[in-house]
Amino acid sequence: MGISKSQLKLITSLSQKKYRQKHGLFIAEGIKVVNELLNSAFEVELIFCTNDFETMLPENKVTRVSETELKKISTLKSPNKVFSLFKIPEEKSIQNSGLILALDAINDPGNLGTIIRLCDWFGISQLICSKDTVDCYNQKVVQASMGSLTRINIKYLDLKDYISESRFPTFIADMNGENIYQTNVPKEGILIMGNEANGVSEEIKNQVQHKVSIPRFGETQRTESLNVATAAAILISEFKRNP
Amino acid sequence: MGISKSQLKLITSLSQKKYRQKHGLFIAEGIKVVNELLNSAFEVELIFCTNDFETMLPENKVTRVSETELKKISTLKSPNKVFSLFKIPEEKSIQNSGLILALDAINDPGNLGTIIRLCDWFGISQLICSKDTVDCYNQKVVQASMGSLTRINIKYLDLKDYISESRFPTFIADMNGENIYQTNVPKEGILIMGNEANGVSEEIKNQVQHKVSIPRFGETQRTESLNVATAAAILISEFKRNP
Repeated sequence: MGISKSQLKLITSLSQKKYRQKHGLFIAEGIKVVNELLNSAFEVELIFCTNDFETMLPENKVTRVSETELKKISTLKSPNKVFSLFKIPEEKSIQNSGLILALDAINDPGNLGTIIRLCDWFGISQLICSKDTVDCYNQKVVQASMGSLTRINIKYLDLKDYISESRFPTFIADMNGENIYQTNVPKEGILIMGNEANGVSEEIKNQVQHKVSIPRFGETQRTESLNVATAAAILISEFKRNP
Repeated sequence: MGISKSQLKLITSLSQKKYRQKHGLFIAEGIKVVNELLNSAFEVELIFCTNDFETMLPENKVTRVSETELKKISTLKSPNKVFSLFKIPEEKSIQNSGLILALDAINDPGNLGTIIRLCDWFGISQLICSKDTVDCYNQKVVQASMGSLTRINIKYLDLKDYISESRFPTFIADMNGENIYQTNVPKEGILIMGNEANGVSEEIKNQVQHKVSIPRFGETQRTESLNVATAAAILISEFKRNP
């Protein structure tokens, strides 16, 4: 059957956030990621796959394609049998429960994907993103999250307003904060990680009392910062490590 | 003056490891990374920079180029004033002292760069890489390490032989290892992190008694793994957090 012109146009448009939002669809690729999505509450729109991809989906959802056609629509170096369109689920509201991670203006899709995987590992089921954080349905985020996307409630909102209205204990990752290893952290609360270059915005910083940092151990004082995903990993580990 | 044909040929060749080794040179780009390298023990071979890049280097090391020429040789999306060639320093031998990180077949340049930054932050000055780990002078590694490369002694060797001969306490990051939060870890030793998809190779695993893992907190048991750089961050933090 192959890929129709209108399908190709749709797929191409989905590299842009505005068209993902307009159509309510996003792209996921490769056996592992697509199977994780198929086994989740996410709803599949269409899959394009080579003949050796096994699927129980109804025929009207499945388009068989050649390796060449798959390569044409794929953004991966080595396309892996299946390319799919899924429906973007509705966002759910955030509950004050457990540890919540909040991201202020994270730019890099790889970082967001890694952070989503991290949340999944540590049982953090709620992730708040400021409106200027990279879209979690960006294709690079979807691939980097490796299916963890399906298990986390991700909500985009005005982070400054949310924090100012929240009564949940809130912590900011900040270079000048208290040594995390010497801080008594609660089991529940919000941990805010900031932009790769600028950290958490001043407006939000001014609203939050608790600031925590990962101490530097290097002899020199020149390492400017940790990557935001590795810093998040260490901080989340500190919130979670004590039973 | 501009870039000569022979320079262009040299630069192009340096995207391959064999030519980096043949010429003993690697590429670094952008103001931040190049300045970190210039302020280190690393020896500069040549820099190509736009007129607004300030430098005290002798004239024979500096080639002024236009923005267009810079774009031509750069691999960055937004080239930032300077492109440079540095000499690959000689590897130093590894001493049994402090915490040493060892990498078994890490493939992704971004992961290696992030891990080098992590070592720098945590004062880990010795990094061992198996021979099949991605080259640390790969341009993507250099850029991702953000100058931390200059402060870490990185040694490529036969990891299996090294571990079998080493008398230093050795730990392996392994999904089936002991809960790291409940493990008494020493101040000194070797921590081995494995390949992104396959973990540490069986041959090395069989040689090492101590295996440590980061417990999964998610309700579901489906998160397959953490990214290797985030896992390294959490494990190193556990070795370093107790004074």
